[in-house]
Amino acid sequence: MQNASSVLFDTIAFVGVGLIGGSMARDIRAAGLARHLVGYARRAETREAIEQLGLVDHVVSSLAEAVEQADLVVLCVPVGSMGQVAQDIAEHLKPGAVITDVGSVKRQVLRDLRAHLKPENPIIGGHPLAGTEHSGPSAALIGLFKHRWCVLTPEADTSIVALDKVRQLWEALGSHVEVMDAEHHDKVLAITSHLPHLIAYCIVHTATGLEAQTQEEVIKFSASGFRDFTRIAASDPVMWRDIFLNNKDAVLEMLQRFSEDLTALQRSIRYGEGENLQQVFTETRAVRRSIQDAGQAGTFDAREPEAMPLSLLAPYASD
Amino acid sequence: MQNASSVLFDTIAFVGVGLIGGSMARDIRAAGLARHLVGYARRAETREAIEQLGLVDHVVSSLAEAVEQADLVVLCVPVGSMGQVAQDIAEHLKPGAVITDVGSVKRQVLRDLRAHLKPENPIIGGHPLAGTEHSGPSAALIGLFKHRWCVLTPEADTSIVALDKVRQLWEALGSHVEVMDAEHHDKVLAITSHLPHLIAYCIVHTATGLEAQTQEEVIKFSASGFRDFTRIAASDPVMWRDIFLNNKDAVLEMLQRFSEDLTALQRSIRYGEGENLQQVFTETRAVRRSIQDAGQAGTFDAREPEAMPLSLLAPYASD
Repeated sequence: MQNASSVLFDTIAFVGVGLIGGSMARDIRAAGLARHLVGYARRAETREAIEQLGLVDHVVSSLAEAVEQADLVVLCVPVGSMGQVAQDIAEHLKPGAVITDVGSVKRQVLRDLRAHLKPENPIIGGHPLAGTEHSGPSAALIGLFKHRWCVLTPEADTSIVALDKVRQLWEALGSHVEVMDAEHHDKVLAITSHLPHLIAYCIVHTATGLEAQTQEEVIKFSASGFRDFTRIAASDPVMWRDIFLNNKDAVLEMLQRFSEDLTALQRSIRYGEGENLQQVFTETRAVRRSIQDAGQAGTFDAREPEAMPLSLLAPYASD
Repeated sequence: MQNASSVLFDTIAFVGVGLIGGSMARDIRAAGLARHLVGYARRAETREAIEQLGLVDHVVSSLAEAVEQADLVVLCVPVGSMGQVAQDIAEHLKPGAVITDVGSVKRQVLRDLRAHLKPENPIIGGHPLAGTEHSGPSAALIGLFKHRWCVLTPEADTSIVALDKVRQLWEALGSHVEVMDAEHHDKVLAITSHLPHLIAYCIVHTATGLEAQTQEEVIKFSASGFRDFTRIAASDPVMWRDIFLNNKDAVLEMLQRFSEDLTALQRSIRYGEGENLQQVFTETRAVRRSIQDAGQAGTFDAREPEAMPLSLLAPYASD
């Protein structure tokens, strides 16, 4: 099925084949960007699901076996596990095999990977800004990365060739690629992603502390704003634990700024400073307009034909 | 066009004909629930828009004129303006005319209305849990209240007949009606709606305090979580200012609980207490499942045929 001219890597290994890895594998295959896809999963149950969904050509239970033939290794594990995986695969990689990842934190991940991998293996940090609150192989979607940003954070001495091949891969999946410094990535994502998730987790947590009767009504009347937060707060707990622990400095900095602003709003409510509230709420409305102007206002919608769950697309899922 | 058997009120007056009032008027007309609809708007520009969209039978610039024939008056103004409106209409109401509203705060609104209205005019507090971040007559949607909750908060001495007619009206618009105490409503909404909005406003506000370059990237990479908050933070500034000021006690109480929880999470991040973070994030996931089990997980979608902007439905808008 592959078009020889579009092949970017002979063999690609996925360490972790869940929402992100599985979605990548599916699209890479459909576009013929690799000749052979290998998938590693730690748990037997997950390996079975990957097999059944036909996400890769070979599913293996050994990290060494997964990566030994790979020209590109895509690490799709929680950011806190990257160092351990790097240690386990370092000796089994082909010389020149390129390592990339899909973690939401980049500075600590680059450090953890480089601490174990050989200099002959280039590391291109990667972060596709796409996803849903679901996880695991069955959450894999076709077209998940289309029209989404993917941030790449190479090391200072990364070869242009290696960077370019990873960039081509993401562009072939339909992503807009932005190359930036890992530290800057972590700062921007701390405010656009990490803090919003922490706050969503927190407000849902606060609601669970209310008395039982009120809690029932919180569920019942959740459509009035709370529901949007519960969707975010349903994201993978281990993945997010690791993100906060591995982007600690930037998250704490943004959290501190947020808390100061929230305290100021709280004070305005207490002392009835309506003008101040109205001014803040008017400014924030303008931010929404900027996002709309930038064409970023859409909401991820699993019903779009190009982003349907694999389970709804049987003819594609089995080819 | 009306079916005589479905008429609940001869004349209904809307004080304010924006997203909520306009959407109500449209559906009331389509279902023939009233013989005559009158709409009041303060600004000439708004009155013109209401006329052009054909939302009501008569658009008037005088509050007295708006309400003098009405059997039901629906107050669709920011909750901070309810008292003033009540004062202005009190002398012009027909004896027995029922007053209701659509405000997001109920205890203070009932107080403000009763302070001016005569005992012969029953007050049924109302709060349809439906809406979008858009406002004004052009934001009015067909079917906005279908399958949504509407909370009614009557006064202690409200007649069963008056309550029942308002309940029938909302049920005819497709809403599920829940009758509860105004104070209890305000507490539940403080956590499900008011606090989420305040937090969303706050995080977007915090982002606007970052240096210019980072701000540009916040817009660019907003899809990673931030975007959902900007949608909420684009809601009407005056409406929300009034909600916070008029539900001060419940909002400050929930805000205090939230701040304590956030401080605890912040501490866990600082000291690397991963187990604690993971436990909280796992609990919150369960809340999402409860909401899904309760059939409340859908997201408002303007593309649903029954909830399209009037501007896209010309044949209906002009009938």
